[in-house]
Amino acid sequence: MTAPTSITRSPAEEARTLVQSTNVASLSTLSDDGHPWGSLVTFAPLADGSPVLCISLLAEHGRNVERDARASLVVAEPDVEGDPLAANRVTIAGVLRRANDAAEVRETYLSAIPQAGIYAEGHDFSFWVLDVDRVRWVGGYGRMDSVDAASYHAAEPDPVAPAAAHAVEHLNADHADALLDMAVGLGGHTDAEAVRCTGADRYGLDLEVTTPQGVSSLRLGFAEPASSRSGLRAASVELTMRARGG
Amino acid sequence: MTAPTSITRSPAEEARTLVQSTNVASLSTLSDDGHPWGSLVTFAPLADGSPVLCISLLAEHGRNVERDARASLVVAEPDVEGDPLAANRVTIAGVLRRANDAAEVRETYLSAIPQAGIYAEGHDFSFWVLDVDRVRWVGGYGRMDSVDAASYHAAEPDPVAPAAAHAVEHLNADHADALLDMAVGLGGHTDAEAVRCTGADRYGLDLEVTTPQGVSSLRLGFAEPASSRSGLRAASVELTMRARGG
Repeated sequence: MTAPTSITRSPAEEARTLVQSTNVASLSTLSDDGHPWGSLVTFAPLADGSPVLCISLLAEHGRNVERDARASLVVAEPDVEGDPLAANRVTIAGVLRRANDAAEVRETYLSAIPQAGIYAEGHDFSFWVLDVDRVRWVGGYGRMDSVDAASYHAAEPDPVAPAAAHAVEHLNADHADALLDMAVGLGGHTDAEAVRCTGADRYGLDLEVTTPQGVSSLRLGFAEPASSRSGLRAASVELTMRARGG
Repeated sequence: MTAPTSITRSPAEEARTLVQSTNVASLSTLSDDGHPWGSLVTFAPLADGSPVLCISLLAEHGRNVERDARASLVVAEPDVEGDPLAANRVTIAGVLRRANDAAEVRETYLSAIPQAGIYAEGHDFSFWVLDVDRVRWVGGYGRMDSVDAASYHAAEPDPVAPAAAHAVEHLNADHADALLDMAVGLGGHTDAEAVRCTGADRYGLDLEVTTPQGVSSLRLGFAEPASSRSGLRAASVELTMRARGG
């Protein structure tokens, strides 16, 4: 068995995964007096992660970007329960480029945000691509990193992300025995009393292990990163077999 | 009976109500090269609606505001289902003012965001008030207005807002007959077949009325605006009595 090169997502992968997970963001632009101006927008990422926006020139941010195309986009993890500062968010700073004639740009936006079809063809709306200069990812307290544009574009969104919440629920509901075997067989927690899965991604599982000494967290990497949404199941089965000495 | 002065919230009231409804926002500041920079923050409003932030000078936005205190804050309606551009959001533009020594500022922030207690007293964090210059409220497609600072500060957040979702649910579940009587007796929809409440605030109810001709919407104002969270019930009862000719 070859050891996996990584057992966690890189900051660039975190950023790409987050940008892929939602279509709502906050756009920062410059007002005519140079004051920073924030507004809510919808967006959709191109295949390389560059965000596409559809902007009304009647909106204040539309007039702003016509005058000065420098902008940044904040994408925050949707549906967070609990402390929002413990959750994922990313800032993408760059320059907006008008891209009305690019079929890929229009199709990317309109397939992600179908309700835009009723207004996007109006004469006051235009499509723009945010050409990425730099990216700042924050994954919670003390988890953050800067990512350059090349690393951002080269990284892949985690294909497992859309299925992760359901997989975690399923593991906890139906496979408590497998999770316990993982903590004992692979995590060295021979006195584990209960184990709960708290996260899953293409590289591995996050477990919360209860022992007589208290609660601790454990990260277990898959033998091979899952390469598709459905790959999480096989990777978890492999982890269980390995934990059981199979 | 005196006619109510208004049967809908003013844009300033919409802005104040929205700012009161959540503690998460996006902050726009200026990077050292003048580029707009967005980041996720938590905030809490003072009694006059001025947002209080607790900013780490280690964060990029912290270094930004130390250098140039111009900023804006985007507050978006939380937990939106469906099209995010059909929902409420507000941009508050102003200048951040350091306010470490103001007890009201600290208490406002720490009582709204108790988890901040563990870091807010650290030497790299400081409290700031966003002194409001202007406000832009957008309530969905075609519903928007600008609000000056004086109107924003003078307006009251809708006291009914925290109870509205539950009240709407209750009206639809248990008082379909009252809603039907309102549409017939007050809305002139004598052929109403079904009526659903879609919104409630201190000034009235939004109804969706189904007749043989189709579905239409109807706004009914209360005789007196509800002045407290619990006032919505009495106002709805009054509306029902009035619909029934009582």
